[in-house]
Amino acid sequence: LPLYNDSLPTPDQRDWLDVVLVSPRNPLNIGAAARAMANFGFSRLTVVAPFDPHWREAKSAIGAPDLLQNAKRAECLADAVAGCSLVIGTGTLTYRKPEQPVAALPALPALLAERRAPGARAALVFGPEKHGLTREDLALCHLMVEIPTDPAQPSMNLGQAVAVCLYELACHGQAANSQPLPPPSLPAVSGHLDLVAGVVEQAMAASGYSPRAMQAANRHDLTVLLRRLSLSERDARRVLGLFRRILWRLKRTPADNRK
Amino acid sequence: LPLYNDSLPTPDQRDWLDVVLVSPRNPLNIGAAARAMANFGFSRLTVVAPFDPHWREAKSAIGAPDLLQNAKRAECLADAVAGCSLVIGTGTLTYRKPEQPVAALPALPALLAERRAPGARAALVFGPEKHGLTREDLALCHLMVEIPTDPAQPSMNLGQAVAVCLYELACHGQAANSQPLPPPSLPAVSGHLDLVAGVVEQAMAASGYSPRAMQAANRHDLTVLLRRLSLSERDARRVLGLFRRILWRLKRTPADNRK
Repeated sequence: LPLYNDSLPTPDQRDWLDVVLVSPRNPLNIGAAARAMANFGFSRLTVVAPFDPHWREAKSAIGAPDLLQNAKRAECLADAVAGCSLVIGTGTLTYRKPEQPVAALPALPALLAERRAPGARAALVFGPEKHGLTREDLALCHLMVEIPTDPAQPSMNLGQAVAVCLYELACHGQAANSQPLPPPSLPAVSGHLDLVAGVVEQAMAASGYSPRAMQAANRHDLTVLLRRLSLSERDARRVLGLFRRILWRLKRTPADNRK
Repeated sequence: LPLYNDSLPTPDQRDWLDVVLVSPRNPLNIGAAARAMANFGFSRLTVVAPFDPHWREAKSAIGAPDLLQNAKRAECLADAVAGCSLVIGTGTLTYRKPEQPVAALPALPALLAERRAPGARAALVFGPEKHGLTREDLALCHLMVEIPTDPAQPSMNLGQAVAVCLYELACHGQAANSQPLPPPSLPAVSGHLDLVAGVVEQAMAASGYSPRAMQAANRHDLTVLLRRLSLSERDARRVLGLFRRILWRLKRTPADNRK
């Protein structure tokens, strides 16, 4: 029935999206996520800080799809998404109020199509089964997507959540994907935003803006803020240049001149 | 976030649809199907000819949703759907040519709405994991629905297939409801963006970032950039605070230390 295959993403579109599993605890869930990816034609999987025995078990399971053999492994989420210019967190928001914009899953294909830029990459991030993404991991997300579940049972099984999200993207994405808007400029990748955060943080410290007790909170706020701003690569380069210059100048200030 | 609950079916609609699992072999899949039902607000489950030990195991699993305790048991599919006026079979059709009309899953909500009659009931039927519905069971279906999967890996896990189908029915009934939330905070007014631009510009000059010849161009770029970033009032206040601090510090740098 070739009719249906028309609604699957083209190879190019599939290639645009990484699926990222953060510290999955259950090897069956890793396998289920990989299988859903194969069902809907996605192939790029990254697993962050897996528990080694479970990771080996998932990879060696009978019938494990090839993409699981080719999955990348990262030590932390920041590394996993360093090359992505759009990082989308998933999870139930019943118990927390996110700092990012939130989209219901049915709106995601249109949002993705809007934000797509040539050469850009996106990541769809799933947290561990029990508690979902940590506050630190959430800070790396530009956008949260919520599967509209029943308030009486909001929390989904990981493998099922992956299946539902990829189904939505593969099977409802076609109309939205057919004509992506030409974006004004190349969006900055996550790793470059981290460079910016680093140099701004140093300037905060060097200028005495950020008391030591506040530094962790400021770092968090900065990480969130930089994602919300939709900086382009060019913006990121400029901000980086300005803050490096400021830092260089601040560091030439004689010590006795500092408070 | 009550917004999203609007897109779940009303109690009346949920009540209209039975989920029927025919001879599920894996107790984990029975549990996963029941969980997906709870996630998407469905409550009527019938299990046809389960293998008794697995059925008991699924019902007694920790965290099994209530609807599993209330599930009906039938000896054959004909009994299970005897009260339904619309029976919808599911499964991959890669290996067979069905005798019924076939709908792709994204078309199902509209079809269900069309076929609905007062007092009528519908059943969504899932076959056993390995081989799907038999020819005899298929004969009881008015309609087949196919999840548009990749031809290279067409066959879905049972729990994931149930989740994807119920997600489609629950969340694409009223597409208008799936709008992204408005941004969480008050956007900065233009005058405040100009204050930010002014102080950033001074920091550019004071740090020697911006040669005099470039200042007009940088001012322009900065004005445009600040609008594009969608800063909130709170963001603007923070950026202002940081740059004021940096400026104050830069100006304490002795003149002879400047290049």
